[in-house]
Formats: sequence, C-alpha cells, structure tokens
Amino acid sequence: MEVKNKYVAIKANINGAPKESDFEIKVENLSLIVEPESKEVVIKNLFVSIDPYQINRMKSQSSSQTSISYATAITPGEVIDNYGVGRVLVYHRPDFKKGDLVSGLLTWGEYTVVKEGSLLNKLNPSLTFPLSYHVGVFGFSGLASYGGFFEVLGQYAKLLGCYAVGSAGSQEKVNFLKETLGFDDAFNYKQETDLKSALKRCFPQGIDVYFNNVGGKMLEAAVANMNSFGRVAICGVISEYTNASTRAAPDVKDIVYKRIRIQGFLAADFMPVYEDFLSKTVEYLQDGKLKTIEDISQGVESIPSAFIGLFYGDNIGKKIVKVADE
Amino acid sequence: MEVKNKYVAIKANINGAPKESDFEIKVENLSLIVEPESKEVVIKNLFVSIDPYQINRMKSQSSSQTSISYATAITPGEVIDNYGVGRVLVYHRPDFKKGDLVSGLLTWGEYTVVKEGSLLNKLNPSLTFPLSYHVGVFGFSGLASYGGFFEVLGQYAKLLGCYAVGSAGSQEKVNFLKETLGFDDAFNYKQETDLKSALKRCFPQGIDVYFNNVGGKMLEAAVANMNSFGRVAICGVISEYTNASTRAAPDVKDIVYKRIRIQGFLAADFMPVYEDFLSKTVEYLQDGKLKTIEDISQGVESIPSAFIGLFYGDNIGKKIVKVADE
Repeated sequence: MEVKNKYVAIKANINGAPKESDFEIKVENLSLIVEPESKEVVIKNLFVSIDPYQINRMKSQSSSQTSISYATAITPGEVIDNYGVGRVLVYHRPDFKKGDLVSGLLTWGEYTVVKEGSLLNKLNPSLTFPLSYHVGVFGFSGLASYGGFFEVLGQYAKLLGCYAVGSAGSQEKVNFLKETLGFDDAFNYKQETDLKSALKRCFPQGIDVYFNNVGGKMLEAAVANMNSFGRVAICGVISEYTNASTRAAPDVKDIVYKRIRIQGFLAADFMPVYEDFLSKTVEYLQDGKLKTIEDISQGVESIPSAFIGLFYGDNIGKKIVKVADE
Repeated sequence: MEVKNKYVAIKANINGAPKESDFEIKVENLSLIVEPESKEVVIKNLFVSIDPYQINRMKSQSSSQTSISYATAITPGEVIDNYGVGRVLVYHRPDFKKGDLVSGLLTWGEYTVVKEGSLLNKLNPSLTFPLSYHVGVFGFSGLASYGGFFEVLGQYAKLLGCYAVGSAGSQEKVNFLKETLGFDDAFNYKQETDLKSALKRCFPQGIDVYFNNVGGKMLEAAVANMNSFGRVAICGVISEYTNASTRAAPDVKDIVYKRIRIQGFLAADFMPVYEDFLSKTVEYLQDGKLKTIEDISQGVESIPSAFIGLFYGDNIGKKIVKVADE
C-alpha cells in the first residue's frame, strides 16, 4: 500500500533572505507498509509549525556549526523535519495505536515516517483545545514563552505583573499589542529613527528584563536602557539570520557596570518543566488571561511563502500551516 | 598645621587613549587640623592602585552614564579618588588611631582626607605580607579574580583544576604565563591573524569559561569557540574604553544555540564574600600555589605614565604606584 507524499524541499543552500524560487514542492511514493522490527510510525501530518530558526539549517554549513543540535544541516532536495501535529496511520510500537493524535518531529510534507528515538508524543485527550494549539501555544513556541516569556512575551509578562512594552513593524500590530493583548505600551520600530530614544520614552524607569528574538539594533538599544542587574533572555535573533551585517554590538561597558546577564536558551531546554508549563497555560487560557494568536495558512504548497513571510514580518502571531483536515 | 599635598589631576576630559599631556601634577596646602565633628580622617597615602576603569570616569559624561556607580565623573583639576593603602595621620573617629594602616578609597596623591561614609578599613595586622598586596591581590583586583577569576585568571583557574590558556601582547608575557604561572598554553594575540583559529588551536575541546577584560575581537572569537552552556564573565573591556570602534559583536546565534551566558560584574559585588576570599588567598599564597605579579612605579609623578601604560600593555601584572615609604 502506497500514498503520494507531497513535501517541501530546498533546491540548494540558502544564504540570504529566503525567496519562493529557493523551494520546490516534490512528490514521492511512500509505502504504508512498515516492517515490524523497524519500530517506525507513519503519521498523517495535520499542522506544522513555521519557525525562523529553520533558515540557519538551510545555510551552507560551516564546520563549527554542524555539531550544534537544532542546527543539523537540511539537505537540498530532501524532506525537512519540523515540529507538528498529526495522526497515526501505521505503527509498530506498543505505545501508539492507529488514529492517535500525536505531536513531535514531523515534516514539511503530508506524511512523516517517524523513526525510533525521534520525538513523538500522544496528545493529552483531556486538552479540548484546537489541534493547532499543540503546534503553537502548547508547542515549542509556547514553551519558549513560558521558559522565557517569548512568543507571547507581553502576555506572560503582564500575567506576572510586569510593566510590558512591545515592539512591532506595523501600526496594525502595535494596536493589536496594546488593545487586544493589553501591553502597557508598544511602538513601531520601523518608524523610530533612534531605538535608544524610543526605549527611553517607553521605559522612563529603565528596563529590567528584555526578551530578545530580534537581535541587531534592538538588542543594543535595550542594553543601553537597562537598569543595574538587568537580564536579557535570547532565544532567537531573526534580523541576523539573513543579514550578518545587522549583528548586535551592545556596549560591553554597560554590561560590566550594570552587571547585565545575557542568557541564550532554547525552548527544548525547558522540557523538564513541560508539565508545569502545560497546566499553567491551560489554566490561563481557560480563565481568559492568555490569548492565542495564530496565523494559519492552508496546504503543503503554502509552506514556502509562510516561511518566507516570517522574515518580512507578514505574520501576526504564531505562524502555522494546516496540512490536512483531521 | 599644614602640609603640601602633591596630586594628579586631568586637565580636561579625555575621550581617546590617555597621554601624558592630559595630566598635570598639582600642589595644594592641606590642613592637618580636622574638626572633631567632621569625622574626617587624614591619610598619608602609601600605595595606590592603577586601574583601567578610571578612563571611563575621565570621559565627557553622557547623561546615561552618570547614574552608574564607579562611573561618577572625574572633574578636571580636582583630586581623583582611587583605591589604595595608607597610614592614619589625623583622626576623629573612635575606630581609628594614629599610625593605623588602612585600605580604602584614597587618592592619586600624597594625602587623602577621607570623609565619613567613604570606604576605609584597617588592615588585618596578622597579614604579614607586603603592603602593596593590599592594593593588588587582597584588593579589588584580587577580589575580582576570586569572584570571577580575573586578574590572576589562569592561576585561580589552574588552582581549581581547569585547563587554562592565557593571551598576552608580547612574547615575554607569553613565556611568563606559561613558565612562571603554569598556564597550559598561551599565545601572543598581536601575532595572530585570526583569533578564532588561535583559540581553536589552543582549545581543541572548546571553551567552557571565558574571563573577559579585553572585549572586542577576543570576545567574538571566544564566543565562536565556546561549548554548549559556556559562560563568559566580563569585568572589563579595556580595548573598548579608548576606541569604541573595537566593540564586540559576538554571533548571537552562537549565544542562542549554545545557550551561552554572559554576565557582567564588578569586584565590589563580591564584598560579601571578602572574608572567604581573603582566607583562601592567604592560604594559596602561603602554600606557594598562587603567585603575585606586581608592577610598581615610584612617586605621585609616575601615576600618569603608569596609567597610560595600561592601555599599551606596558605593565606585567598588577600596576601599582608606591607614593611613600612606610
């Protein structure tokens, strides 16, 4: 028994900003017959996450990067693994049965053959939220937020009683941050001629905590406006993924005199507190204290443009592609 | 009763590398009669510390810096306060008597009038080490080393069993690091065309901990060669004090993927563990496990050149000026 599996691949390594012509939609024949001893599980993909970090795997790899987890090279022409949600079609493992809803390391395609040892978990059936939540707010994006207030930054910060200011690239997003998400303030970084002054205006008392997934000039401006013993959590640096010339050069004198701590982290580092994260997040959602913001495109064919759009700020909220109906 | 007090002042703010003509030696009449209610203590200065951070206080001050401790502006023409060791001449405090040896915030001059509330401590008479040690290895330089293995970096690192590599700006210093201090390796950064390759060569297994008091390209190269969960302690950034164009722009992708922590600190942050630091350091010195390296010039007039030399790497070891004999 075989199906046609449509999937997205890169044609060659991508070293600048990604564009449509860098990608191709390929079709392969995928066997649904799995050898019992292989312990493989075939998944029908339902939702896949679209994340900026993938661009780093698409670059020509320097020797120093290949040893870093989450940075293993993506090979042109081949299937791209990616976090997602799907349904079990075929299995040879006692812990899964046909029809199970699962999350884990799936692919930018319609089906995934999950090998033994690869990340795959059954969804908790008591979580009666939309399936896409398992890619966004319950997935690595949410875990990063929780472990370091990332994707829903201001929301977690507000929940914990902080004065929170957001930054976005359009007036529409700025309004959304202030009016829908309840940020204390927000500004359009594209309309500021001097980010240091913008932050000084928004934070008259200085900044204690800065969550950085942008990098570049914003990191420099934040460090300049930080209070003593301020902390910077960095889980991404999108402006530097496609343009190395935007690299941040924060003033190290500020780091010394103000004893600033800068800490890089990955969402996966917080897997040990996943259960805590999940129960608190469910509670916040049920109480209406946390809002999910999802930006969902349809079909495998939309993956390249969904991904490319991340680097132009096209999305509002967590970018997800719906691959198939449940 | 009066004495002539010779002291060093800056003629005007200094914004680049310091040079002799930026300084002047001034003489003032200093009264040795202290009003009882003033609680002032007059000190005859014996040794003063020469530290790179003072250059930041000599710059034209931007408004954002003046609120930072250890960065209060130095006023042209006026006395410059600085850590040192001296002897009590006149006192109106029950906790000091004439002849006491003290350490604290003295001046770049022959005498200091220490106001109430300013840092001043009696030296522990049981410490039978040279007085200069109280400026160097028992002072803020030593405390910074202990709190973050700074001034005697490789020595503390070696004591704790680390593989330690030093970097210096001359072959003489490189030999000194390897042969006298027992570093596992050392290199001359002025002879390396590519610091990243130099560090890769010296650290084939990668870097776990980097103590930075240089900044610039060395910080970038260290971050590039760090292992996952590596830590960078920064208590100075001498290459950036006099030349902002040497600012470090470490690759933030490395910081994220390798979850690197960068922590700024000041020696004074470790005052709460001073007693621990002192007793351990005394023990290491007595056991011959720790070597002090002092570079001592004579007389108030030598303060400007001693200070200027820091920025050209003229000193080997802790730079101190001996102001007077005991």
